[in-house]
Amino acid sequence: MNSGDISQEFKESLRTKIQATVEKVRAENPMAPSITNTVTQDFVANAQLAVGGSAAMFYMPDEGETMAQIAPALYLNLGTLLPVYAETIPRTLRALKKFSTPYVLDPVAIGFGELRTQLLLEMKNSPPAIIRGNASEIIALAKLWGLAESPAGNVRGVDSTDDVSAAKIPAIALAKFTGGTVAVSGATDFVTDGQIAILSRGGSEMLPKITGSGCALGGVMAVYLAVANPLTAALTGTAIFNQAASKAGNFPPATFKTHFLDELYSIPAQEVAQNSLRLEVPA
Amino acid sequence: MNSGDISQEFKESLRTKIQATVEKVRAENPMAPSITNTVTQDFVANAQLAVGGSAAMFYMPDEGETMAQIAPALYLNLGTLLPVYAETIPRTLRALKKFSTPYVLDPVAIGFGELRTQLLLEMKNSPPAIIRGNASEIIALAKLWGLAESPAGNVRGVDSTDDVSAAKIPAIALAKFTGGTVAVSGATDFVTDGQIAILSRGGSEMLPKITGSGCALGGVMAVYLAVANPLTAALTGTAIFNQAASKAGNFPPATFKTHFLDELYSIPAQEVAQNSLRLEVPA
Amino acid sequence: MNSGDISQEFKESLRTKIQATVEKVRAENPMAPSITNTVTQDFVANAQLAVGGSAAMFYMPDEGETMAQIAPALYLNLGTLLPVYAETIPRTLRALKKFSTPYVLDPVAIGFGELRTQLLLEMKNSPPAIIRGNASEIIALAKLWGLAESPAGNVRGVDSTDDVSAAKIPAIALAKFTGGTVAVSGATDFVTDGQIAILSRGGSEMLPKITGSGCALGGVMAVYLAVANPLTAALTGTAIFNQAASKAGNFPPATFKTHFLDELYSIPAQEVAQNSLRLEVPA
Repeated sequence: MNSGDISQEFKESLRTKIQATVEKVRAENPMAPSITNTVTQDFVANAQLAVGGSAAMFYMPDEGETMAQIAPALYLNLGTLLPVYAETIPRTLRALKKFSTPYVLDPVAIGFGELRTQLLLEMKNSPPAIIRGNASEIIALAKLWGLAESPAGNVRGVDSTDDVSAAKIPAIALAKFTGGTVAVSGATDFVTDGQIAILSRGGSEMLPKITGSGCALGGVMAVYLAVANPLTAALTGTAIFNQAASKAGNFPPATFKTHFLDELYSIPAQEVAQNSLRLEVPA
Repeated sequence: MNSGDISQEFKESLRTKIQATVEKVRAENPMAPSITNTVTQDFVANAQLAVGGSAAMFYMPDEGETMAQIAPALYLNLGTLLPVYAETIPRTLRALKKFSTPYVLDPVAIGFGELRTQLLLEMKNSPPAIIRGNASEIIALAKLWGLAESPAGNVRGVDSTDDVSAAKIPAIALAKFTGGTVAVSGATDFVTDGQIAILSRGGSEMLPKITGSGCALGGVMAVYLAVANPLTAALTGTAIFNQAASKAGNFPPATFKTHFLDELYSIPAQEVAQNSLRLEVPA
Repeated sequence: MNSGDISQEFKESLRTKIQATVEKVRAENPMAPSITNTVTQDFVANAQLAVGGSAAMFYMPDEGETMAQIAPALYLNLGTLLPVYAETIPRTLRALKKFSTPYVLDPVAIGFGELRTQLLLEMKNSPPAIIRGNASEIIALAKLWGLAESPAGNVRGVDSTDDVSAAKIPAIALAKFTGGTVAVSGATDFVTDGQIAILSRGGSEMLPKITGSGCALGGVMAVYLAVANPLTAALTGTAIFNQAASKAGNFPPATFKTHFLDELYSIPAQEVAQNSLRLEVPA
């Protein structure tokens, strides 16, 4: 058996897991509560519901502790910070650690503001199961946590200004440190658990033209994390987003967004998993 | 005249009131300001505008006092709490009582977090004209206010896990205590003012697949409460949601939501009121 | 050369600038960060993205100072105030002044609540490059700043209850005081830099039926302000909204909103600029 055969077998096992994850969420309707930015909450919640999960957003410290105890997975997105987060997020992180509840981190706007830096440093002690960001954010987080010598990247608000390939080494370093999975979003998505790295193509040029598609992806990964391991959850989220966006068609942004959410709901699980052109394991 | 005749006559009077309420809001454009959760504000406001009302959301304590004085009706939804609500909601409640301004309460996520429990206990002293919730929430509120011996129900975040029928006795107890109306949302909706109980069928299986349909219903009831009594306002909101959702068609969630909002705007008042299959007065 | 000729030549120069501004934003993708109300953030951000800009919303004081230093233009919308704004907005205003960064102000709900009045008074010392509001808001702001003897108007929450023509004198007074531009939104929009006044017709009766169209217009003007002077930015925002709304068609509100956002993205720059029936310079 040569390496090509191994890869084929491995890909097939990933596809089986992805399909099972899509189906399990649609059957079990798991809830992945969020501390997430106020701009895109509606999109995040509707994306979570569209794939079959449930949503609940919260702000208060004791609510974070309760959610960390009772929910199967959480989503923490730092897009917009409020003063109460200085208490809510550290207390939630401690409870997540205590109850071994996994969470997805989206380090949006890393480098912007003192509170965001302080919270991201605190997360190093309660590491996320999945980190999802664009290349700039992943590079900046690896640097903030002292895990990469690579240049800091040019983080520009919520936009990606680095190519995904520049984030591969920092992403692998982060995954090794957390013991979880890192998903770098871009024209080609890069997903790694520190051991293997998987590329996923697809998507649409319209995704960056609607606000919150990255936030929604993080929220959907958290729903999948409620029923699957971090690598499978991150891959399933990436795969359904890429396939749904591909199918949403060539429309201007508001019509595209409607079709995209509809596809998250309607797309067959087998189709998400089997589209072999959209999944590559780098040699 | 037998009871069947009475019921028929009573139904007809309800329909006349519902039609008049839909028409009056479209003609007068009343504003029902809200303290409501951040996730679904856009949907709540657009639903209020679609039925012909006006919207304004606020957070600050003195704003609550002013709104309670000048607005015809308010909407309080506890879906996401912020620290400032510890001051804003009690001050608003006192002003609502002082100025006899009616309000709609949506006790979303009752049982979750200390502040929510504290605020809901405070509301017992300034009771809402309409309480709208799913079965679990209505059962939990009746229990919190010491009004029902019924089991507490299994409140699970923002989802309903109890059947509407299980909430009938707690709903009647709440309505008798408040002197207002309680609307229990579910596959079949149950609305009671403590004396009579009305079932409303219709709706769509897609409503629970979009975030905030319950929140939007509460906001729309508040707009109707600006021009009608609590029972009529709750029934009108329930009827227009059921009929608009029925007409929105069999589409995936994002397309369904667009059609649903469009129907709230376009549906003839007579059709909302007259669809006799969708309104039942239990024997 | 008579005044008619001057006007024609002047109109042509405005059209050239408007077309160039639409094209420049689409090419350069400038970011205009916002402190804006929580109800309409999704719509504001998606409108900013649709015209080719970038969006970022924030709440924290130090974030405001950083944004005022690094962004080409900001958008401040007072629709919903949170306690932290008592610190964030004054610090942001001082930084905007220090770094000569222009901003767009939307004085939504002026007159409602102590904090809003306090912040609007503080803005008199760091005047906005563009003020966008409905007639009531413009009249109330001119009065608050002691710039107009005109009656205060009947400000009713977020609705306009004054005719645009009633706001002309206060608008001109505000523009002269700030050295910037004032845009009064209504059935006919009135835009002035204190020297000249321009009317823009178009739009759609459906715009007031969707929540946040005024907020979105302010956010889009801020994106244009990143690449153009205040008068051109305000006119370009007004022109693209009027033309996109005209083209969005005669649909109920949710479908209309989708088409409207799509048109903001798709409409040719030349069409925005050249529709001569929609731009009038008052004699």
